[in-house]
Amino acid sequence: MIRHCVMFRWNDEATPELIQGLRDNIVKLPERIDVVRAFSMGDDIGVNEGNFDFCVTADFDSAEDYVVYRDDPSHHEFIATYVRPIVGGRAAVQFEM
Amino acid sequence: MIRHCVMFRWNDEATPELIQGLRDNIVKLPERIDVVRAFSMGDDIGVNEGNFDFCVTADFDSAEDYVVYRDDPSHHEFIATYVRPIVGGRAAVQFEM
Repeated sequence: MIRHCVMFRWNDEATPELIQGLRDNIVKLPERIDVVRAFSMGDDIGVNEGNFDFCVTADFDSAEDYVVYRDDPSHHEFIATYVRPIVGGRAAVQFEM
Repeated sequence: MIRHCVMFRWNDEATPELIQGLRDNIVKLPERIDVVRAFSMGDDIGVNEGNFDFCVTADFDSAEDYVVYRDDPSHHEFIATYVRPIVGGRAAVQFEM
């Protein structure tokens, strides 16, 4: 299986309401894109300094299925609407589990 | 449950042998630190540009158990010996699944 991990740092425009909008809408992605096998996300719990603010992990049967998710129009629309306006930093890896 | 995610970028000193040393020894951590409930790691598969090089995800029953792992002497020794010499960048989040 392929695990996709992505982390975000919020920018100065990231109000609590905009962050909540991202949380409310990201959970719709695995319902809309049926190649997703597992999907977890959440805010950093604040145990360590210097961390990013938010993380998503999503599992897929194959790299091809991950690319289907990555390129799905509903994923692109989610990123443009809810992610891009409030993200100041991003880190990502896709790896074989 | 708490998921700990950490990503690394290798620095210019990171030879294939040193990276293999990290891979060979990181798998010993969940054997040595019994609070670890799930442990996955791997190299970025190269589907996207700009990604970090390596990722670890580890799951724990609680934030307290994650801190036990973080502060375990065998974890500290692993970081000092195998991680710090070859890491040029790091990104991390701990989140509640």
